[in-house]
Amino acid sequence: MIEMQLVALIELFPSDGSRAIKEPKDTSSSPHNFIVINNMEAKPFDRSALEQLVTKRFFYAPSFQIYGGVAGLYDYGPSGCALMNNIINVWRNHFVLEEEMLEVDTSIMTTYDVLKTSGHVDKFADWMCKDLKNGEIFRADHVVEAVLEARLQGDREARAAEAGAAAVAAEAAANAEADKAKDAKKKKKKGTVVAVKLPDETVKLYQETLAQIDNYGGEQLAELMKKMDIRSPESGNELSTPQEFNLMFESNIGPTGQLKGFLRPETAQGQFVNFKKLLEFNNDKMPFASAQVGRSFRNEISPRSGLLRVREFTMAEIEHYVDPEDKSHKHFKDVKDVKISILSKDVQLSGKTTTIEMTVGEAVSKKIIDNETLGYFIARIYLFLMKIGIKHERLRFRQHMDNEMAHYACDCWDAEIQTSYGWIECVGCADRSAYDLTVHSNRTKEKLVVREQLAEPRVIEQWQVEINKKTFGPKYKKSAKAVEEALLSYTDACYVKLQKDFETTGKSTVVIGKESFEVSKDDVSVKRGTVTEYVREYTPNVIEPSFGIGRILYSLLEHSWWVRGDDEARNVLSFPSIVAPFKCCLLPLSGNAAFDPFVYKFSRELRKNGISTRTDDSKASIGRRYARNDELGIPYAVTIDFQTVEDGTVTLRYRDSTEQIRDTFENIVKLIKDETN
Amino acid sequence: MIEMQLVALIELFPSDGSRAIKEPKDTSSSPHNFIVINNMEAKPFDRSALEQLVTKRFFYAPSFQIYGGVAGLYDYGPSGCALMNNIINVWRNHFVLEEEMLEVDTSIMTTYDVLKTSGHVDKFADWMCKDLKNGEIFRADHVVEAVLEARLQGDREARAAEAGAAAVAAEAAANAEADKAKDAKKKKKKGTVVAVKLPDETVKLYQETLAQIDNYGGEQLAELMKKMDIRSPESGNELSTPQEFNLMFESNIGPTGQLKGFLRPETAQGQFVNFKKLLEFNNDKMPFASAQVGRSFRNEISPRSGLLRVREFTMAEIEHYVDPEDKSHKHFKDVKDVKISILSKDVQLSGKTTTIEMTVGEAVSKKIIDNETLGYFIARIYLFLMKIGIKHERLRFRQHMDNEMAHYACDCWDAEIQTSYGWIECVGCADRSAYDLTVHSNRTKEKLVVREQLAEPRVIEQWQVEINKKTFGPKYKKSAKAVEEALLSYTDACYVKLQKDFETTGKSTVVIGKESFEVSKDDVSVKRGTVTEYVREYTPNVIEPSFGIGRILYSLLEHSWWVRGDDEARNVLSFPSIVAPFKCCLLPLSGNAAFDPFVYKFSRELRKNGISTRTDDSKASIGRRYARNDELGIPYAVTIDFQTVEDGTVTLRYRDSTEQIRDTFENIVKLIKDETN
Repeated sequence: MIEMQLVALIELFPSDGSRAIKEPKDTSSSPHNFIVINNMEAKPFDRSALEQLVTKRFFYAPSFQIYGGVAGLYDYGPSGCALMNNIINVWRNHFVLEEEMLEVDTSIMTTYDVLKTSGHVDKFADWMCKDLKNGEIFRADHVVEAVLEARLQGDREARAAEAGAAAVAAEAAANAEADKAKDAKKKKKKGTVVAVKLPDETVKLYQETLAQIDNYGGEQLAELMKKMDIRSPESGNELSTPQEFNLMFESNIGPTGQLKGFLRPETAQGQFVNFKKLLEFNNDKMPFASAQVGRSFRNEISPRSGLLRVREFTMAEIEHYVDPEDKSHKHFKDVKDVKISILSKDVQLSGKTTTIEMTVGEAVSKKIIDNETLGYFIARIYLFLMKIGIKHERLRFRQHMDNEMAHYACDCWDAEIQTSYGWIECVGCADRSAYDLTVHSNRTKEKLVVREQLAEPRVIEQWQVEINKKTFGPKYKKSAKAVEEALLSYTDACYVKLQKDFETTGKSTVVIGKESFEVSKDDVSVKRGTVTEYVREYTPNVIEPSFGIGRILYSLLEHSWWVRGDDEARNVLSFPSIVAPFKCCLLPLSGNAAFDPFVYKFSRELRKNGISTRTDDSKASIGRRYARNDELGIPYAVTIDFQTVEDGTVTLRYRDSTEQIRDTFENIVKLIKDETN
Repeated sequence: MIEMQLVALIELFPSDGSRAIKEPKDTSSSPHNFIVINNMEAKPFDRSALEQLVTKRFFYAPSFQIYGGVAGLYDYGPSGCALMNNIINVWRNHFVLEEEMLEVDTSIMTTYDVLKTSGHVDKFADWMCKDLKNGEIFRADHVVEAVLEARLQGDREARAAEAGAAAVAAEAAANAEADKAKDAKKKKKKGTVVAVKLPDETVKLYQETLAQIDNYGGEQLAELMKKMDIRSPESGNELSTPQEFNLMFESNIGPTGQLKGFLRPETAQGQFVNFKKLLEFNNDKMPFASAQVGRSFRNEISPRSGLLRVREFTMAEIEHYVDPEDKSHKHFKDVKDVKISILSKDVQLSGKTTTIEMTVGEAVSKKIIDNETLGYFIARIYLFLMKIGIKHERLRFRQHMDNEMAHYACDCWDAEIQTSYGWIECVGCADRSAYDLTVHSNRTKEKLVVREQLAEPRVIEQWQVEINKKTFGPKYKKSAKAVEEALLSYTDACYVKLQKDFETTGKSTVVIGKESFEVSKDDVSVKRGTVTEYVREYTPNVIEPSFGIGRILYSLLEHSWWVRGDDEARNVLSFPSIVAPFKCCLLPLSGNAAFDPFVYKFSRELRKNGISTRTDDSKASIGRRYARNDELGIPYAVTIDFQTVEDGTVTLRYRDSTEQIRDTFENIVKLIKDETN
């Protein structure tokens, strides 16, 4: 489950965010190098150009666009859908098949009870406030940020003007950028900037407020807004007191209108409630993992940042169940030398964002990462992201601060990918302890535990309580069961007191809610004794890697995109073959009918060899078609020309290097197969 | 899109429905024959035994079962999820990749406007009525059926008792079964049967009513219920007048509560609204198809029949866009010899259900199937269903009757699969004409058309209307645009009248809604003339194959299941390898540590060869584990024993024949690969 904290994860990236847009290096010597390193350079990243490409080649587009679209809903076109399917396939092979995880496919529509227990009904919410005149709705924390940042910017401009020196003005501007990058966790609607100098203590107060903005609840936000006179940054009108807005889409199941349902906000709960069946399916063996890929929903107050904050999205989640007393991992040795960039909570506490390169083995042995299983999954996440084409130098693992984590979590890491929007949480990896299984078990009275035969029986000392069934029923009548349960679930201290009460007065009092019941030693006996255990019973802990597929896909687009040449905008998306929407495009030189049988035969042959193929037999020139297919990120192009008709040879063109090779079709197929495996 | 008529597709199967449960034939001579023919035999089909197996091996189970579950929502466990994923993969290879369809992935949450246009807001509904005392809700048509059938049954019993002859009673019972099988289209809650003889004309009336039940609207149902005094079959209480209940789950998008959304009832609309982008993506070439696999929702009044009538389900839909003037198909010749069982509308009209075996080529040439493209897809659907293991003799293609089809459809076929619930519509294949694109285009004013360069320009005669812009604006002011549009969209007859009006009086009247406008020949001129067209513009027709994946999966379970031996219930699911949840299970003979490195190495090796593997190293005996894996439908078992440690050989066991082969692991892998490809 991507945490509730997820609402606060988009950091503002410097708007002049440096990104290379240049020819990949060394392509001549290595035509097969599809992974292009985009060196960091001074050239600004042109997000709108990428967005144009994404639209033009229909990777994705706003849903129902001919009806005007709806914020936060996107449709994936043929290229985006194929890219996503391929990412999911790699994920499934890398995690589910390789580790024999138990993949499930559970309902999206989820009942109130399940999500009440999980905490989503009460806590899965943001604070919103309304423009009291025009009714416009804002997220409360966003609006505070926008207004305070506008005021601080105004202050800097005023100070710069006062100093009257260009040098100072420049510095102020630089500071403004730095501040934004450091503190503001979200992109926001800009407040109007007016050059007004603020008292020094106000500047400090504002800066401190912004640094803390994610930690404020509704009441605190309300207080802040009143104290600082926060108004709509758009209209200047007064705003309502922040109201809680639950982010789940609500609906009714069945015709009565009495069974409330929600669209799941994550795929995790569907796995937890099936724990018992899954353990049984796994022949009661531990540890094991379940997994699920599917759609989840989040009714954002104000969706933005393209695919990064949407109302409907595909997730892939793993719930790995582990013995709380033994979080070692059988295959940890296979990944211990994997080197990752780490941003630990200690470093963050010291106010820095410096990452350290470190092997996972080292991080676990130094206790930076809490345990082997968590470390194992962090390494496996890294390897997965590398496989699909995320750049090593733009990926870091950030540890959650203690105040960021849910109270029950022991350790939590985010795989953050750097994009033009900043460092984006794309995968969460949390040790959620026994929380989820415990709450569902408590609520449903269904035991969600593992029973393990002990190698040696063990003798343990414990309180032994015996209920006298004969007197109990008649005496307590309807309350008998409740009194019995209360007595059986006493803490150690309570048993000590009970025993003392019996020794001194022969009776004691059981308090259940507002009621009290007197019990005597004839009704119940209590003593400290020993029992021999042959079976150990425990609630497993859950390690949960949770992937936001849309975010990963968007990050991959940014990491894969570059522009060939300088004068002409020739876009290339250098996806690794394994995720490229199509592996190969097949291009007859022209519409000449002589090519038709070759197109038919070759496309079948390519598919038969597992090479997904797109035929482009449109009338555009071959150069234009090459360019078009570069924009789709297709790594190989096979061209059929008149020579093909004569001798069966074709031209193979590489997307990244544009290098061309001529050989028989059969050899070319073999080459592509060898290179893509 | 599975039609609105889908609500009426489950036919009642004779409750003693014959199905074979026996050893497959000839396995000794052909150990590789995984497709087991279940011959029709007198032994009754034991659905509850299959259901037990499905639960025990966690193919699927009610969602949130530890919370009590909810009707119509199911979770797929590891075996069911893998089976479904494999069915979808075969589907994707068979349709999308093989035919280069444009697969998309569009939003589930859909706005009101889109579904208002498509007709779902107004028409996607069932009629329900309420028990006026206890509030229980029924589907109106179901309740009428239940009550009338109970009365007819009572009548038969009374007549049998009257005749006092055992022979007559038996006949009555037989008739009862026959009637049910023939007429009742749905399984229903039984009304209480009381032996009361009815007048002959009442019997006739009831029988006619039942035969027509699917054709009644709300008013007719209300009238019927009043006239026949239909009450709750459970309580005998009076029922409310039938109310329309829309079957879409409704929700609100965003925090304002003002943007209504629905969970899509089908994946088709997401494809239609993207038509323009998809055509462009296809370089404006026709014909082409889009496709989508995904979740859809239907808020059933009373879900039942397991996976066959659920509230959330996975669909796979294809929208093939074709020139209305040329519905030939380039690859029709590849499938024309495919032989299928056909139940045409003519046969049904004659009151029969006899299917005819016929090649698709013959059916198209005889005009039983309307056109080549429709025939092509029917054949491809057949081939797909055969590939995944549906039995030829339990699959038929039933043509819709004229009164079953939507008014715009030209021809519509259902692939119906026989199960213990009767013949179930699992795939629909409809020619929807230009309906969908036309309605969305009319509503949004977005042109959803194909423009085709004509090989030869053509001269056509048409009405030419010229608006005098100078007088028009000042004269009609705000209404100018509406008047102009009205004049430009006149029918031929209207132009004739307009011309006549101008000739006689010099003016005419344009009526728009309730308003009338006078136009004179100074404002507009109209004449019949010729124009030369270079481009042909048309709205494509849509051929739509639409697959209910859950229904197919359930049918496949029934077709694949048999019981080995007679005394012991040893279940086997003989899935074809291509869809089996796991291809191979790997079994170390015991927990001996010497086997561990082999398990590790062999499971990696199998996966590397694309053979999905499940390791079963539990302590159960090898025989018990074989049986368990037969229940999961795993076609191959590889056993590691002490000889393996010595010489690297393993035992391969075939699921269906239980035949065993001993060879080196490498040879066994090669054998499995050869056999599964």
